[in-house]
Amino acid sequence: MSQLTVDLNCDMGESFGAWRLGNDSGLLTYVSSANIACGFHAGDPATMKKTVRLALEKGVAIGAHPGLPDLVGFGRREMAVSAEEVYDMVVYQVGALMGFAKAEGATLHHVKPHGALYNMAAANGTLAEAIAEAVARLDEQLILYGLAGSELVKAGEKYGLRIASEVFADRTYQADGTLTPRRQSDALITNPEQAIRQVLRMVKEGKVQSQQRTEVSIMADTICIHGDGPHALPFARLIRERLLSEGILISAL
Amino acid sequence: MSQLTVDLNCDMGESFGAWRLGNDSGLLTYVSSANIACGFHAGDPATMKKTVRLALEKGVAIGAHPGLPDLVGFGRREMAVSAEEVYDMVVYQVGALMGFAKAEGATLHHVKPHGALYNMAAANGTLAEAIAEAVARLDEQLILYGLAGSELVKAGEKYGLRIASEVFADRTYQADGTLTPRRQSDALITNPEQAIRQVLRMVKEGKVQSQQRTEVSIMADTICIHGDGPHALPFARLIRERLLSEGILISAL
Amino acid sequence: MSQLTVDLNCDMGESFGAWRLGNDSGLLTYVSSANIACGFHAGDPATMKKTVRLALEKGVAIGAHPGLPDLVGFGRREMAVSAEEVYDMVVYQVGALMGFAKAEGATLHHVKPHGALYNMAAANGTLAEAIAEAVARLDEQLILYGLAGSELVKAGEKYGLRIASEVFADRTYQADGTLTPRRQSDALITNPEQAIRQVLRMVKEGKVQSQQRTEVSIMADTICIHGDGPHALPFARLIRERLLSEGILISAL
Amino acid sequence: MSQLTVDLNCDMGESFGAWRLGNDSGLLTYVSSANIACGFHAGDPATMKKTVRLALEKGVAIGAHPGLPDLVGFGRREMAVSAEEVYDMVVYQVGALMGFAKAEGATLHHVKPHGALYNMAAANGTLAEAIAEAVARLDEQLILYGLAGSELVKAGEKYGLRIASEVFADRTYQADGTLTPRRQSDALITNPEQAIRQVLRMVKEGKVQSQQRTEVSIMADTICIHGDGPHALPFARLIRERLLSEGILISAL
Repeated sequence: MSQLTVDLNCDMGESFGAWRLGNDSGLLTYVSSANIACGFHAGDPATMKKTVRLALEKGVAIGAHPGLPDLVGFGRREMAVSAEEVYDMVVYQVGALMGFAKAEGATLHHVKPHGALYNMAAANGTLAEAIAEAVARLDEQLILYGLAGSELVKAGEKYGLRIASEVFADRTYQADGTLTPRRQSDALITNPEQAIRQVLRMVKEGKVQSQQRTEVSIMADTICIHGDGPHALPFARLIRERLLSEGILISAL
Repeated sequence: MSQLTVDLNCDMGESFGAWRLGNDSGLLTYVSSANIACGFHAGDPATMKKTVRLALEKGVAIGAHPGLPDLVGFGRREMAVSAEEVYDMVVYQVGALMGFAKAEGATLHHVKPHGALYNMAAANGTLAEAIAEAVARLDEQLILYGLAGSELVKAGEKYGLRIASEVFADRTYQADGTLTPRRQSDALITNPEQAIRQVLRMVKEGKVQSQQRTEVSIMADTICIHGDGPHALPFARLIRERLLSEGILISAL
Repeated sequence: MSQLTVDLNCDMGESFGAWRLGNDSGLLTYVSSANIACGFHAGDPATMKKTVRLALEKGVAIGAHPGLPDLVGFGRREMAVSAEEVYDMVVYQVGALMGFAKAEGATLHHVKPHGALYNMAAANGTLAEAIAEAVARLDEQLILYGLAGSELVKAGEKYGLRIASEVFADRTYQADGTLTPRRQSDALITNPEQAIRQVLRMVKEGKVQSQQRTEVSIMADTICIHGDGPHALPFARLIRERLLSEGILISAL
Repeated sequence: MSQLTVDLNCDMGESFGAWRLGNDSGLLTYVSSANIACGFHAGDPATMKKTVRLALEKGVAIGAHPGLPDLVGFGRREMAVSAEEVYDMVVYQVGALMGFAKAEGATLHHVKPHGALYNMAAANGTLAEAIAEAVARLDEQLILYGLAGSELVKAGEKYGLRIASEVFADRTYQADGTLTPRRQSDALITNPEQAIRQVLRMVKEGKVQSQQRTEVSIMADTICIHGDGPHALPFARLIRERLLSEGILISAL
């Protein structure tokens, strides 16, 4: 019988200059892979270096977390960028983080787009392919993290990349396997126990119950842990403990 | 008898978004190495990609040209940055350009700091070592370009890097081997023939005549060709032709 | 019989730092109002001051030209900004330009949004009202320039502002009075004589012929003169001469 | 007998986008004037609007707090800017904040430069005059806040501006009236009671004891309250209470 394994990933290094954000050091105790901001939506060179070093100390896999060039909007506002612009901004940002990894004698493990870029790449195949092409040309060993079932996952496969299908503990799903849009009142799961149950079922059975009460098949390679909010740290610990107690191994791909 | 060889380098990729600067395509015909801006003082991801591709097409060696984070000042204003901040900004920018080189299947050849960062690194050993350390940790095969006789050259040697000592065709020198400061009226050589004579002597004899009428020893591995100004292109062609007609090979290290 | 009058406006001050764009000094000879970039899509403090002074010297009305915060995209890429974010960015940018006007003892005359912000405000009433409210709260004497017949014009009227309905010489129109989208092959009028005829008819008769061969009523208070392109200057002179020769006065509102 | 009055000022609005900094709402309860960041070192349009509104609610005088264009360095790193560049950046930033004040029907009360710009203007008369000229041309009713005895105070007087001489509760002074440089171990006063005694003596007697044990005359129109650090809020309350209990009125000029 094979060992069930899942990855816990978390966005990191989202401070900027004098401004602090998140509890990277605390969260690195619980997750197995870190998505490190690359300077366009958050992160600055000093923060990137520090976060890479912290992840290495904790034995957590290092990933790049490229975003749209929108510092004041934290990369959360969609922009009408072309596929070529997306390709360019991914090469630039992932390259910069590769620099910090290389300077520490480490290797970049994965790439996960941030915020609006993640959402756009989930739905728009052309932009998704621009990201996948950028990643593949930088290093075909890189793993591409994308929303389970999304265009980004398909684009990664097309470019021969290894894929990590990402699921969310605290978001509800629709019958077609997409996330319930945030503007809907039932988008979030606020009950930790319910979130844990959803995660366990996704990991163990490959299924999630949709808001329409149907069962949906879902691939769960990696679980997104949100690093912000007052309950981020205890929830990360809880989800880790429950996965381990179910005999599930927590490890980056 | 060994073959006299010198490199001609030029700053490139200094456009930004909708704004064009320089005649990269024209200059790449005459130079043997290109210093490509990395986004902090000039250059954006699209321009970086395009310039890397252009240099590859023309067979010109690709270098990174990192600068201070001062877009509106074009990286020409000195800033009170710490050695650690300099290390970080060099890793970030060189890493980003390495990304574009890697995406094209190419290898980065050298690093030359830009503007105020270049000047600060020529005089300040601590900042110079921060740059050399960043370059060495990124790739010890990279060649560091620095002002001949400067702290940056010493720092590169300390970190075991190959060095390219840079000289200027159109700048006068002081008895101590430094450049005449630009604020002095005799800082620039505006007569092309005089500039060429200075270059030929530096390359062939390793000597330059100072403004104090003394002879100064100088190492001339690479000659800086300025890409701006109305006469940039004809002067680049002229200097290339004269070097070749003297039997000097033009090639990156 | 009343005197026919029309305004010629042009975007100005779109240089940034070391990068030059446009021929502001030349164009100021032909236009009656200048839309000066405010730093978000183009323009920096030095350029804003210089452009304000130049416009004052030439007796041209000074307007603010606020854009989206997207320097590398020149404010041409739509962004998913909220109405409140639009209000804030307009107050900030127009306020900054008012500062330069005030420092010269001058008064700001008008506001015209730039690029993607202009297009979004033409179609989206909520964003249009955010702009109009910002302008009205800054100075109710300011004139709001907007695409003739657009949501921005309506929003300005709602907030009690004076409006300048803007028309284009070199763009074709649809039967509903909107501009033919740029992606269509028939969007641009490249024949100068045809462009002039369209302008004269809009100014004298308040009509334009649509691409569907229908006659459309249009209000033409101000004509947009494009400052870029190799023919910008001769076309500006030509349109000015032809308007004057038809007895039409060229003047800001 | 005239009423002793002093102003308590504090830097505000230094959040940026998603990043929070300081406890503006709490501090506005204790201070009489607010220096609001203008976007170059901190602050964004949304934060500026919110902070202006908050200060108005609390009846606190609104000031502009322009800084160097160095977001990642929080405006704390000196830059080799020219006097003209300083003039331009002050007009731009103060103008932008005037916009938000005007949009709320309020008037800007004062200008205090931030960080490295404040320090450079204290020591460098040419830069100080550039700031004073910018402020005077924007509105000659504005009050210029500067380090007591500094070049900035002199420049303000030269340009006919009202001046607020600023003193520090938690910094020690030298025999020549300058602040003890931060790099020295005795630069800071960490004992709150000692800080209060220094303040009371400066306000009541116009004197401060230097680190060289001499008495130095000092003008104390306004006291700088630091908004960061864990003790900022209780110290602000303490200093306010002690001033009031000594019969000193706390009010902006």
